[in-house]
Amino acid sequence: MDTNIKLKNPLRCIVKLGGAAITCKNEFEKINEVNLVTVSSQVREAMMFGSSSGSVLDMDWSKRDGSSDTANIVEDFKEQQVLDYNSFVVIHGAGSFGHFQASKSGVHKGGLNQPLVKAGFVATRISVTSLNLEIVRALAREGIPSVAMSPFSCGWSTCERNIASADVSTVVEALNSGFVPVLHGDAVLDESLGCTILSGDVIISHLAAHLKPQFVVFLTDVFGVYDRPPSEPNAVLLREIAVREDGSWSVVNPTFEDSDKQVEISVASHDTTGGMVTKISEAAMIAKLGIDVYIVKAATEHSLTALSGKLRDKIPEDWLGTVIRYVS
Amino acid sequence: MDTNIKLKNPLRCIVKLGGAAITCKNEFEKINEVNLVTVSSQVREAMMFGSSSGSVLDMDWSKRDGSSDTANIVEDFKEQQVLDYNSFVVIHGAGSFGHFQASKSGVHKGGLNQPLVKAGFVATRISVTSLNLEIVRALAREGIPSVAMSPFSCGWSTCERNIASADVSTVVEALNSGFVPVLHGDAVLDESLGCTILSGDVIISHLAAHLKPQFVVFLTDVFGVYDRPPSEPNAVLLREIAVREDGSWSVVNPTFEDSDKQVEISVASHDTTGGMVTKISEAAMIAKLGIDVYIVKAATEHSLTALSGKLRDKIPEDWLGTVIRYVS
Repeated sequence: MDTNIKLKNPLRCIVKLGGAAITCKNEFEKINEVNLVTVSSQVREAMMFGSSSGSVLDMDWSKRDGSSDTANIVEDFKEQQVLDYNSFVVIHGAGSFGHFQASKSGVHKGGLNQPLVKAGFVATRISVTSLNLEIVRALAREGIPSVAMSPFSCGWSTCERNIASADVSTVVEALNSGFVPVLHGDAVLDESLGCTILSGDVIISHLAAHLKPQFVVFLTDVFGVYDRPPSEPNAVLLREIAVREDGSWSVVNPTFEDSDKQVEISVASHDTTGGMVTKISEAAMIAKLGIDVYIVKAATEHSLTALSGKLRDKIPEDWLGTVIRYVS
Repeated sequence: MDTNIKLKNPLRCIVKLGGAAITCKNEFEKINEVNLVTVSSQVREAMMFGSSSGSVLDMDWSKRDGSSDTANIVEDFKEQQVLDYNSFVVIHGAGSFGHFQASKSGVHKGGLNQPLVKAGFVATRISVTSLNLEIVRALAREGIPSVAMSPFSCGWSTCERNIASADVSTVVEALNSGFVPVLHGDAVLDESLGCTILSGDVIISHLAAHLKPQFVVFLTDVFGVYDRPPSEPNAVLLREIAVREDGSWSVVNPTFEDSDKQVEISVASHDTTGGMVTKISEAAMIAKLGIDVYIVKAATEHSLTALSGKLRDKIPEDWLGTVIRYVS
């Protein structure tokens, strides 16, 4: 396999569909359908930005409730002109899929010789790939040429939980052919532990480093990163975080009187792959590469602004979200 | 990626779950649940053959109708002893999944610059991966540690419809970790055409050549290969086909009086990836490697006999099916 395959066109955006944003996190294996439809529609709008997109042509021709007549869909495609669009990669978290299976069996700790761990590995993959299928379908229904790419199937593996082998050439080939790869947090083989969980956020950092997108968007279920759990009164949204050469970061907007103020982070207790703490440090690593990172509430006007890339020029006064960017 | 990764243990069997055997071929995207359950159970029995298998422990912990209590499942696994079993690879066809999407759009002919072909590629993958998920789940419910591996996600590609890149190291790693990889016919990228369909039968030949299984089983919806379409009166089951050094083959049992007799083959009209003709020539190529091939009706006592490997010693008089093997 040629590991030096290059992108034909610059990658516009890597977008993370946070598990909390696209699933009902307190209900076992339940998708937040309303959010998923809106998110898919916004990704489409952002991809088509600047081109005459025409009507939305459904690319999911599989059986489902209340589906339209597929024969007509085929006729519509014959008349469709070739569209140019910005290239995107989609990564999604697990939310209420996979976590139960992973945590009950301890897949992240490894030990495939234990029947429980091996079964948990199988069960976790079934759960996360079933979510992946539904997300690919939701994107395809919006006319986005989405293709499932499970990290385990891609042959990605870890060593002591760090990425050991994660050849991005398959992702590049898919992008060069005009598709939108859809990856996800997955159970993978680990050279030392046997197996572990590779989180969606780690995948994003890896892809960002190799594919150099123009910007990265994290869609989540709150407006961004706060100075304390957002459910607490007086929680302040951190609008802009500056990342320095050495990887350290500080809040530059709003400005706090107490400069030593520790930022308290909201961590959803069920999120075994890391909540906001992981998110900020991963985001800072991405920003250090000169890639703007936007953390924003999914399915809002603010997420559409972020996905469209408009924040790269100027952050509007009324935009709600967190920008994490490199300052030299 | 290390392409020289070796199997820790010999591969026992590659089994093809024919599309016609596990789906209702005349009903759009409908699984033949009864057959799939029996087939999964038989694969389990064949894998566990010779060991004290104990009770069947369900590895599908996802939401479904009438599921048992998952909390109990986890407890059961804690008490389960480590089992030895024969290693298997499962490949499945598409049946009533994927064919509609592929044929309507002409994915097999390539041309990704056409909106219809690109959409058809996405639609085909959605259909075949949704079948793949259901087969992985059915196997997991039988306690088989099955893991989905889509050829497209594995980075497999073709050139002029022949396999160009199909690194089997990911499959080997999965086998070495004790899993049962489940692959399928898939839409893939083609270096010259843009895209095409990689059939399950071509995948089997490729894997057989690289992984050298002890035998290969094709599970289908008829008792084997006949001298004419099996629906016709007086159709004769070809019980044994001998393959010679040069790849040519002839029927050795039963013996026909007319030695020039042309074997008429049953080809299901909707099977765009090739019916029995493809099957025999692919099977002959596998047999030429010294690997016995059994073509047998799924979910019968005959399929269990084939899967268990008993035919390698002696073919019982009352066994119904077709054996294709090398004669020097």
